[in-house]
Amino acid sequence: MVGKIIHYTQVPRVPVTNAHKTWIRVLISKDDGAITYIMRIFEIEPEGYIPRHKHPWEHEIFVLEGEGLITMDEEEHMVRAGMAVFIPPNVLHSYRNVGDGVWKFICTIPLFPTAPEEGK
Amino acid sequence: MVGKIIHYTQVPRVPVTNAHKTWIRVLISKDDGAITYIMRIFEIEPEGYIPRHKHPWEHEIFVLEGEGLITMDEEEHMVRAGMAVFIPPNVLHSYRNVGDGVWKFICTIPLFPTAPEEGK
Repeated sequence: MVGKIIHYTQVPRVPVTNAHKTWIRVLISKDDGAITYIMRIFEIEPEGYIPRHKHPWEHEIFVLEGEGLITMDEEEHMVRAGMAVFIPPNVLHSYRNVGDGVWKFICTIPLFPTAPEEGK
Repeated sequence: MVGKIIHYTQVPRVPVTNAHKTWIRVLISKDDGAITYIMRIFEIEPEGYIPRHKHPWEHEIFVLEGEGLITMDEEEHMVRAGMAVFIPPNVLHSYRNVGDGVWKFICTIPLFPTAPEEGK
């Protein structure tokens, strides 16, 4: 087969380390031939969250379902289905489900760091 | 504001050249600070299509709504909401809406070629 086509539910979900009630499925990875960036889906259950963290690479996100709160440095933003989010490298960010259902979003990430690492 | 957060409907849609009944909105671009790849949303109306073409960079796609037919080289695949698609560089590919509603999908693409260009 050329390339890859898969329904996200065909990929087993695994818990995200250092997070609460949060699951990840890697949909397109370097094992599939991805050479620049990869695609994952996150599912954060009600009351779930990913605490503040940062890293020297960006995220590009698209929200599929649910309602969440994303922080970027000192800013807070409510997001919902149909919203795209760009989180630049080295920005402190966090995610929290603030709705009644599962919050689902696509999150893409480069395969390699794209900025100098800042002090940890 | 740090980064970018936008609902896709806030971005004007523009017709895709060399395609039929097909619209694109660029959700995250280098103007937003993207440095590795960008995120677009495509909306292909019923009977709409993007003819076969190829280029020396990959696509990573996530289907949001509708039903479409994607070809990669000689292969044809039906896709629907929840499916992720990886199209490697230099693979001939096309898109055709085969459903009754608008076919919507996220399509990400590197900012720079990632493979040698093959004979045109």
